Amino acid sequence: MIDLPFLADIRHSTPSKIVLLVVDGLGGAPHPNTGKSELETAALPNLDRLSTRSAAGLTTPVMPGVTPGSGPGHMALFGYDPVKYLMGRGVLEALGIDVELGAGDIAARGNLCTVDAEGKLIDRRAGRIPTAESAPLVEMLNEIEVAGVDIAVYPVQDYRFVLVISGDGLDDRISETDPQVVGVAPLEARALNDASERTAEAARAFISAAREALGGRERANMAMLRGFSMLPALPNFGERYALRPAAIAAYPMYRGLAKVVGMRVIPTGRTFDDELDTLEERFHEHDFFFLHYKPADAAGEDGDFDAKVDMLEALDACMPRLLELRPDVLVVAGDHATPAILGAHSWHAVPLLVHSALTQGEGIDRFTERECMQGSLGRIAATEVMMLAMAHAGKLLKYGP
Amino acid sequence: MIDLPFLADIRHSTPSKIVLLVVDGLGGAPHPNTGKSELETAALPNLDRLSTRSAAGLTTPVMPGVTPGSGPGHMALFGYDPVKYLMGRGVLEALGIDVELGAGDIAARGNLCTVDAEGKLIDRRAGRIPTAESAPLVEMLNEIEVAGVDIAVYPVQDYRFVLVISGDGLDDRISETDPQVVGVAPLEARALNDASERTAEAARAFISAAREALGGRERANMAMLRGFSMLPALPNFGERYALRPAAIAAYPMYRGLAKVVGMRVIPTGRTFDDELDTLEERFHEHDFFFLHYKPADAAGEDGDFDAKVDMLEALDACMPRLLELRPDVLVVAGDHATPAILGAHSWHAVPLLVHSALTQGEGIDRFTERECMQGSLGRIAATEVMMLAMAHAGKLLKYGP
Repeated sequence: MIDLPFLADIRHSTPSKIVLLVVDGLGGAPHPNTGKSELETAALPNLDRLSTRSAAGLTTPVMPGVTPGSGPGHMALFGYDPVKYLMGRGVLEALGIDVELGAGDIAARGNLCTVDAEGKLIDRRAGRIPTAESAPLVEMLNEIEVAGVDIAVYPVQDYRFVLVISGDGLDDRISETDPQVVGVAPLEARALNDASERTAEAARAFISAAREALGGRERANMAMLRGFSMLPALPNFGERYALRPAAIAAYPMYRGLAKVVGMRVIPTGRTFDDELDTLEERFHEHDFFFLHYKPADAAGEDGDFDAKVDMLEALDACMPRLLELRPDVLVVAGDHATPAILGAHSWHAVPLLVHSALTQGEGIDRFTERECMQGSLGRIAATEVMMLAMAHAGKLLKYGP
Repeated sequence: MIDLPFLADIRHSTPSKIVLLVVDGLGGAPHPNTGKSELETAALPNLDRLSTRSAAGLTTPVMPGVTPGSGPGHMALFGYDPVKYLMGRGVLEALGIDVELGAGDIAARGNLCTVDAEGKLIDRRAGRIPTAESAPLVEMLNEIEVAGVDIAVYPVQDYRFVLVISGDGLDDRISETDPQVVGVAPLEARALNDASERTAEAARAFISAAREALGGRERANMAMLRGFSMLPALPNFGERYALRPAAIAAYPMYRGLAKVVGMRVIPTGRTFDDELDTLEERFHEHDFFFLHYKPADAAGEDGDFDAKVDMLEALDACMPRLLELRPDVLVVAGDHATPAILGAHSWHAVPLLVHSALTQGEGIDRFTERECMQGSLGRIAATEVMMLAMAHAGKLLKYGP
């Protein structure tokens, strides 16, 4: 959380409603052939029109040059310091499959892998074994018992699973067992400090039992663990901002991120249209909605420039439904850029619009990286977006006499 | 160093090469007659062309309104917090004459001065006595011995010298002896805390011996000391960024700054052409080069607007040689502005270009203060430049899952 000790004095609950639309991977970069980014290439009549009557700017998710994962990208937009409240890979993976983690639980990402007769790695991903084949194996792993702790194993997809270790006094500072290369044996889970010794022992016991349970198979005969992590102690979002916040997200990881900061997660369907249905139905119940749009990021990660353009246009087509609800403040933001030319998240600054009754536009007429750069908000830290939203919603009193 | 605890997790060594070209005193200010800055007045076809395919912005060396010396200006560009890692005047002066300082050494800047029969200052700079006259005096001072410490005195230029005191348990918190006015006696070097008592005593013993050695002369018959300082404990640049860094700089102070952060200093000649020769010869040996261009600052400090324009044009003429090496990332930055109309360093933000295979330009077509202001990088802290360079070089992994 960005350190705002005075926020408790100026936050001010009102009936006004804020919608924070997070367009995952919103920002892009110019295509070498055209010199135009995805946003510049797409036809976005509704977002462009919105830009003519919004305050515009660019957000820096973490700092210039730093490419955030989905966790830090969202935490920053929620107003949490993305460095202080970093969530580990195991936790994110658990949130991504709707596993509820308790305080003190240890989550790790697991891989089924293949070893030879001597125990040396042949394939770190067990031939990317399909879910149909891995599901019964994961069920077997879930039967494993380790003295003194509770073990739960959940399937993710293909060769991937999540291990959750529960019990008292656990600690996540444990080394990974994936050596990242083949031809050597998986590493042993080691305690990285005294406090984690017991947890490391439990991890080793699990791995040893997994080896036994899976042994004899030709492939997927061993398991490796990475990203041991626990939920950080997260201040409550609703208390901080004096909001009754709700999250509507089709993808589990984003629901998970919202849940761990204390937002109410409203069940929805699998598409953005479903999310809008849910928003319409429940719009009267909350004064803050986090709404997540995934497809632009997915296309960017695939390196498919045209698909990302299409997904942005698909979002644009949904905007009238959102605007018809007349939220007092509508923020259109991104957790990070995902330029298709990189096929990955990137460090670039991300376009931002803040629309309210107070915004009258500022001479820009397109929702693009280059236009937003000229906006009155300038380039701000993503952690500051919530404060702007609150201000435009009339939810912040004067600071100081 | 800016506090980035996560950098160790995301830095990623690759063969890609970064060149950080620091144009000393790069930024300027408009000439009152033309309304154009030095960069706007100069014909810079190569830098302008580079700006059309770079990411552009402005850097703030320390903070708005703060005019940095060369030390803070460079430390910030290297990614070090220029306030936390401030180097004192004595240290900078020593680095400027290629004196190697050890950890715990105390450096002070010395002035030869002239006092009357009563010991009162007549001339704080001994009539700006020329080096030819001061050199034998400095040699005499170098013969001084003080019990318990090692004393070394090095000539700088004219009336200036550097004193280095070496020994165990020294401390630099010592008051200056130059009263800054004439008609009074030089001050006594006083310990500013208990730990510096012994060092202050050594300084007083040195001054007393200097008075004796120089006594009887009509001018330059006394010495004063300022800027007692030690090297701060500096984290290693190469380790921090997982780079094999080299510095190529014609002027000793900049070599010194590079050396104290752990860069390898490659010997070169006295001009920027010599630096480019060196860069060409040694380009295969390193993945990071700090290249320093001095003449623009020198002209600015002289208050010579036209000369500064000429020196910028001379730099521009060298750019093709630099670009022919095809560094993966070329950063053109400045340690601070030196507007000729001020004849001094200034607090103004400094133009910045970052060029890589990923930069496609952003609609600007000149390398000037006003154009760079429109760039996508916005206005960033100089300490963030290295992170952008690293990102564009593919040397930073994603932060957080």
